[in-house]
Amino acid sequence: MTYSFSVVPRYAEIDQQGVVFNGHYLTWFDEAFTGFLDHVGLPYPELIASGVDVMVVHSELDYGGSVRWRDDARVEVTCERRGTTSFTLGFAVYRSADEVAVVGRNVYVVVVRDPETGAWSKAPGIPEKLAAALG
Amino acid sequence: MTYSFSVVPRYAEIDQQGVVFNGHYLTWFDEAFTGFLDHVGLPYPELIASGVDVMVVHSELDYGGSVRWRDDARVEVTCERRGTTSFTLGFAVYRSADEVAVVGRNVYVVVVRDPETGAWSKAPGIPEKLAAALG
Amino acid sequence: MTYSFSVVPRYAEIDQQGVVFNGHYLTWFDEAFTGFLDHVGLPYPELIASGVDVMVVHSELDYGGSVRWRDDARVEVTCERRGTTSFTLGFAVYRSADEVAVVGRNVYVVVVRDPETGAWSKAPGIPEKLAAALG
Amino acid sequence: MTYSFSVVPRYAEIDQQGVVFNGHYLTWFDEAFTGFLDHVGLPYPELIASGVDVMVVHSELDYGGSVRWRDDARVEVTCERRGTTSFTLGFAVYRSADEVAVVGRNVYVVVVRDPETGAWSKAPGIPEKLAAALG
Repeated sequence: MTYSFSVVPRYAEIDQQGVVFNGHYLTWFDEAFTGFLDHVGLPYPELIASGVDVMVVHSELDYGGSVRWRDDARVEVTCERRGTTSFTLGFAVYRSADEVAVVGRNVYVVVVRDPETGAWSKAPGIPEKLAAALG
Repeated sequence: MTYSFSVVPRYAEIDQQGVVFNGHYLTWFDEAFTGFLDHVGLPYPELIASGVDVMVVHSELDYGGSVRWRDDARVEVTCERRGTTSFTLGFAVYRSADEVAVVGRNVYVVVVRDPETGAWSKAPGIPEKLAAALG
Repeated sequence: MTYSFSVVPRYAEIDQQGVVFNGHYLTWFDEAFTGFLDHVGLPYPELIASGVDVMVVHSELDYGGSVRWRDDARVEVTCERRGTTSFTLGFAVYRSADEVAVVGRNVYVVVVRDPETGAWSKAPGIPEKLAAALG
Repeated sequence: MTYSFSVVPRYAEIDQQGVVFNGHYLTWFDEAFTGFLDHVGLPYPELIASGVDVMVVHSELDYGGSVRWRDDARVEVTCERRGTTSFTLGFAVYRSADEVAVVGRNVYVVVVRDPETGAWSKAPGIPEKLAAALG
């Protein structure tokens, strides 16, 4: 499954070379991830309320092109890998219908909250509902 | 008393017209305020730990000029007004030794934490130590 | 005429007190202004291409409340004043259907490009098309 | 050679979990790179003025820990690789004197400006002065 998240590049995100400053793509990935969770019926606040959270432990980005102001951009999200306690989402930033500017991925580790102490720790596995959402 | 806070304009803060995007000045004001509290011997975390906090209720900015990348910028902070439960700090953003680009001010309301309930509410007055710091 | 611009508060915009950091509202105002120009049929790039631009010379904000992550937020834009060479837009940030969190305004000065030299200077007046758009 | 760049984490960079939002580290890397160039006597504006620029084509980050507000942070920069037309800088974000929170790297491709057409293209090699600066 690929989920597509629309982005309107903000004027404040464009640097003096006329392109989106590279740090902002990680913000877009984060928003796209939140949108992805909504899309699969597992809104992030509900996930957290159920005692499950995810932590990004690794990011990578390849900048093959640039997104500019007024581009009709989107971020496509796919689950690249689902391990036992972590998963990897791939992100492809399109600057137009068919032109990819940037690709990247985040590795997420699943953590769970101890219902008694409230402390978070690495999950023994990916909770079923999240695993199903990841496909 | 005027406190001077140095700022290195970040490349990511410069927009495609080659100047600092206007929203970032409020971030600079905020950092300058934190620096001001350090300078007067009342670090922000200590203030909060003592059960006192401030909330910005009003901001205004006049953009008379622009700050550019590599400008040797600073924000000068002065207390413009000290009322009974609020105060106003003035901020002047210099883009060089003697050239002011932007001026502005924030109005802060002082809030205190009820030691029993932990709830925050408007302070009956500005705590002595903060009042002294404001001059 | 009031134009309404939807905003999804970004997780990266939320500070450790759980509310949108105040500097981001100016970014929202800016995006809402761009949306407003689209809405009135005068997209910003077309405006600039026609030799007309606007410069924000003054901003002010009153923070009566807070916007939080996952709020269904919007910015309502109204023209508060149309002078001979400048105009004022008012912005009201709603954190829900009927709850205003922040209000503010930007004063814009209209500048025009000399077709021969390419230099920008204060416009003699607000160009008709923009004036009509402002209502 | 390792160059150390001090960073004061901005309040606006801290998210509601109390840690620096991950996208900001790329901004820190960028500022650290600019500081690095200053340090080696090759300020970025001079580099560009000489017809040489660099483009980030790849970034990666491993988040082993978190930086918090008021941490005395720094970014250590080292040249990890110097190829014929590209180079890799490694960045280690310390949240205290000896505790690394995040490590990452950027791959930069060198581009040069054609003095006649003004167009930028991939450099045939890393210009001597920059190569020397990279060590």
